[in-house]
Amino acid sequence: MTPMNWLDQIKWDADGLVPVIAQERSSGDVVMFAWMNREALARTEALGEAVYWSRSRARLWHKGEASGHTQTVHEMRLDCDNDVVLLKITQNGHEPDQPGIACHTGRHSCFYQRLQQADSVEWQAVEPVLKNPEQIYK
Amino acid sequence: MTPMNWLDQIKWDADGLVPVIAQERSSGDVVMFAWMNREALARTEALGEAVYWSRSRARLWHKGEASGHTQTVHEMRLDCDNDVVLLKITQNGHEPDQPGIACHTGRHSCFYQRLQQADSVEWQAVEPVLKNPEQIYK
Repeated sequence: MTPMNWLDQIKWDADGLVPVIAQERSSGDVVMFAWMNREALARTEALGEAVYWSRSRARLWHKGEASGHTQTVHEMRLDCDNDVVLLKITQNGHEPDQPGIACHTGRHSCFYQRLQQADSVEWQAVEPVLKNPEQIYK
Repeated sequence: MTPMNWLDQIKWDADGLVPVIAQERSSGDVVMFAWMNREALARTEALGEAVYWSRSRARLWHKGEASGHTQTVHEMRLDCDNDVVLLKITQNGHEPDQPGIACHTGRHSCFYQRLQQADSVEWQAVEPVLKNPEQIYK
């Protein structure tokens, strides 16, 4: 009997995708959320760097291919329903001893908007831009 | 001019849903991934506890309604594309000074399967069951 391939255990959605959470191993920060198809997940495992499926561009997206901000993958986790993947990563590409930049806005994490109670309840950007995106995507 | 409602800023998907990541504030552990519709997110904000949309049951799901394992929400974050929400939570309902149980299997986190290289590459359960699910869902 052939053992079941680890890729076959994933419950791919109707579009053949699985949601993926990228968490920084050192800080525990959740820095990004994206999607993978079967080929993206296989390449991520083979390469040891995150390769996503870009839904907007409808193609494989080796994270950092344009920015240089690659993600080294240390560990992959799968949830109880086999339909969500969690990556433990190191976010590369910024100056040493500086927080890594995962977000295309030049911020450490994509989750930089916090719901706050001011005059009304509103989303406010609460994390600094570490590098001008124009300097990242030259 | 009426200010834009914070719920209107969310880019709901074709099914009117947004993916939600639940991260434990104390440990940084990602314990769960689920979905919310507009009403679920509004209730979460009003209640201060996580209310999801159960896609399998097609109804609102106040996390912990059956298990007692509610999630106190301390903070809500939104990503750069306005289409993913991150919750900073406390996972309630287990014995004091014990890790909270988020997973229906009785484990701390739903992400308890790790990709490992053994004879072949495979997903292996690497986190203990803290409480028998039969004792949780009585």
